[in-house]
Amino acid sequence: MKIQVLYSGGKDSSLAAILLEPFFEVELVTCTFGLESSWENAREAARELGFPFKLVRLGPEIMDESIDVMLKFGYPRPGINLVHRRALETVAVSGEAKHIADGTRRDDRAPMLTMPEIRSLEDSHNVRYIRPLAGYGRHAVDELVAMHLEIVEGDTAAVAKADYETEVRSAMRGRLGDAVYRRIFPPEHTQSRVLRRYKS
Amino acid sequence: MKIQVLYSGGKDSSLAAILLEPFFEVELVTCTFGLESSWENAREAARELGFPFKLVRLGPEIMDESIDVMLKFGYPRPGINLVHRRALETVAVSGEAKHIADGTRRDDRAPMLTMPEIRSLEDSHNVRYIRPLAGYGRHAVDELVAMHLEIVEGDTAAVAKADYETEVRSAMRGRLGDAVYRRIFPPEHTQSRVLRRYKS
Repeated sequence: MKIQVLYSGGKDSSLAAILLEPFFEVELVTCTFGLESSWENAREAARELGFPFKLVRLGPEIMDESIDVMLKFGYPRPGINLVHRRALETVAVSGEAKHIADGTRRDDRAPMLTMPEIRSLEDSHNVRYIRPLAGYGRHAVDELVAMHLEIVEGDTAAVAKADYETEVRSAMRGRLGDAVYRRIFPPEHTQSRVLRRYKS
Repeated sequence: MKIQVLYSGGKDSSLAAILLEPFFEVELVTCTFGLESSWENAREAARELGFPFKLVRLGPEIMDESIDVMLKFGYPRPGINLVHRRALETVAVSGEAKHIADGTRRDDRAPMLTMPEIRSLEDSHNVRYIRPLAGYGRHAVDELVAMHLEIVEGDTAAVAKADYETEVRSAMRGRLGDAVYRRIFPPEHTQSRVLRRYKS
């Protein structure tokens, strides 16, 4: 069974792919608005992991909608959730795999779909949405990551990976200026990027 | 890393063990109040799967507490949740593994720990509690089960497995009579038991 895993090049989506590997035919899918080339980091990481990689373009209306939602709420979480949901829908609509997955964890708050959103995604597009890390807490994730992956961690500015948040951050800064950007996004945000997979 | 998986011999806990197998050293653990020998079904299923098996005794005060809670609420879910939580605690307290798991799924309502109960379990006993099926819906579980396991399904009376619910049902019926038992428990309850694992 083929499964498409939403992929950022970070430790969570990498571990999700590794946990699925013995049971599915995994393809890593990175979404981009086409505004930056940060997706290339994900392609590099995918090569290191040894999985096929695919780039998927998200429409500019999703970016507009996301920024509107962040401005309305005054913090990024609802906008990040919205982009994530639209990305899953975009992959589901393509119809290339009956199973789609991501690297969201038990303790994550964003991106995170609600149960009604999950049911809607699955029923509307006849897909199964799988979250391999949904039953893993932070410590368990960190232990498995340490066994399987060499990673670099740091704040968003230092560690280039390829989640849509990078592009949304840049777009908001560019469109609305530094003051608005700093009001919406907290200054520190730890990211990880995969450098290498340990051979077991 | 050793992981102890709460095991009933049913499809969910069997699939949970299979999903963990490539990443952990799995031991299946079946809990019993020692009132029936239904745990032998789980031992049989464990042998078919090819995992080591262990029997763990639950104290009679857990049974008493569970029946009290069911009578108080008038339906079994809170009592089943309580026994499950106590079973996880009993396994965690033994200190034999730093990781404990079960076969609870995304769409399950019972047994199911709340997030505060999960944090309490992990922090009090310094264990990681993992739910491999937490990110899998019913259809995805059924597909994976069909790929890996031959099962028999039917109602509780017909399919003997080894969840504590079987023992709690019998104990309640014996102590409080058929009328009370039938008021608390719904008549139909589909169970599954593993017969065989397909070699991949």
